[in-house]
Amino acid sequence: MTDGRMRAAVLLIGDELLSGRTQDVNLQAIAKFLAPLGVQVAEARIVSDEIPEIIAGLNALRGRYDYVFTTGGIGPTHDDKTADAVAEAFGVGIDVRADARQILETHYKSGPLNEARLRMARIPDGAILIDNPVSRAPGFMIGNVFVMAGVPSIMRGMLLGAARHIKGGVVVETRTVRGKGLREGDLAEGLKAIDDKYPAVSCGSYPWFSAEGIGAHLVARSADISALEAATGEIVALVRSLGVDPEMIADAS
Amino acid sequence: MTDGRMRAAVLLIGDELLSGRTQDVNLQAIAKFLAPLGVQVAEARIVSDEIPEIIAGLNALRGRYDYVFTTGGIGPTHDDKTADAVAEAFGVGIDVRADARQILETHYKSGPLNEARLRMARIPDGAILIDNPVSRAPGFMIGNVFVMAGVPSIMRGMLLGAARHIKGGVVVETRTVRGKGLREGDLAEGLKAIDDKYPAVSCGSYPWFSAEGIGAHLVARSADISALEAATGEIVALVRSLGVDPEMIADAS
Repeated sequence: MTDGRMRAAVLLIGDELLSGRTQDVNLQAIAKFLAPLGVQVAEARIVSDEIPEIIAGLNALRGRYDYVFTTGGIGPTHDDKTADAVAEAFGVGIDVRADARQILETHYKSGPLNEARLRMARIPDGAILIDNPVSRAPGFMIGNVFVMAGVPSIMRGMLLGAARHIKGGVVVETRTVRGKGLREGDLAEGLKAIDDKYPAVSCGSYPWFSAEGIGAHLVARSADISALEAATGEIVALVRSLGVDPEMIADAS
Repeated sequence: MTDGRMRAAVLLIGDELLSGRTQDVNLQAIAKFLAPLGVQVAEARIVSDEIPEIIAGLNALRGRYDYVFTTGGIGPTHDDKTADAVAEAFGVGIDVRADARQILETHYKSGPLNEARLRMARIPDGAILIDNPVSRAPGFMIGNVFVMAGVPSIMRGMLLGAARHIKGGVVVETRTVRGKGLREGDLAEGLKAIDDKYPAVSCGSYPWFSAEGIGAHLVARSADISALEAATGEIVALVRSLGVDPEMIADAS
């Protein structure tokens, strides 16, 4: 991107996410992993285990963002269709690859490397393997697309391997001010004025409701740290002006 | 849809979901709420708080699915842009509406109904209000689109109100067989054969890894209950043939 930011999309693949059977946790993990590298997740899509859906999502996203990270659909069963969909999206062939097969052969010494397991060695032509430190069957990178497993522990392992292929951008930092008793309707005007005054800073308000009562988190995000600190100072003053004690909270993302 | 199924898309709106600051839980709640009504969530997208992004997502989804459910961006602050984006997507006007204003006036007896809070009474022309039993500021329905809050407790309250506007379809049921020690590479061939044998049934395999060890959930889904039961019986037999004791687990989704 021309502004020095790198933007990524996440494509989560799996019927189980859409049926509600499984609660996705990968999007948040990917976003938090990428932020310190200077890559912002700008869009995400969740599609079913159908090749046309995967291709459509992938092609829409890979042209638009610096990187795409997919999760899910690279296991040994018939509903694992991601590698084939990626090959088709890129217009390249796909077959069992010697280096991927070698990884599986080493891992499955104690079990049969049958046709199903060999599916996990099918890699689109031209892809780079991504190491899987958890269960060995690799992910891969092709073009600007990282293809990772859906199981969260495996996905996180693959992210570590993916990192050295990621060219980061400017790092966007976040400051979060928590105000117990803060009501959005009271702070909206003041927050908008701060957001308008600092064009490099994006301000957001996130209300919370809990046993403790109500309140809001006011979040400022920017790659321009001096503007960020100035805006945060004004947010703190705004909260105080509403009779609420502002609390800075740690927020890595 | 011609097959008697009703399909929905979910559009989650909010920078905080993409930055990883907030873990979405609304997609799962919506999917689980709609399934017994005979509506399947077939796609989801997560977009930032930017009007062009919201419009693009909404227009892509509302033409393709029977219903679209959005969450987020209908509060009182400057980053709440969903109602304006929806009005623009439908090409209709938007203004403070008397009935919505009345709801807020009743609620904010103890506080000022200022300009910021009045933003929550801005409703696209032609929309139907959706009751908010939690914090009063209403959601709305326009065309086939339900616009709901992002705070999970409020969103769930609005779903209850949305339900009477939803025309359901055939209900897809799920059977889940759990096998401790089951390895996907061993069951893939047998599961594919069952999936091929019952075209009305969709079979999936979901490995798990925990302190207990490894295993897999084998999931069958269909609106054809007799086919579903037959396929499930074969899955149970498959698991037994692999030397694993199959366990049926309750799964409402």
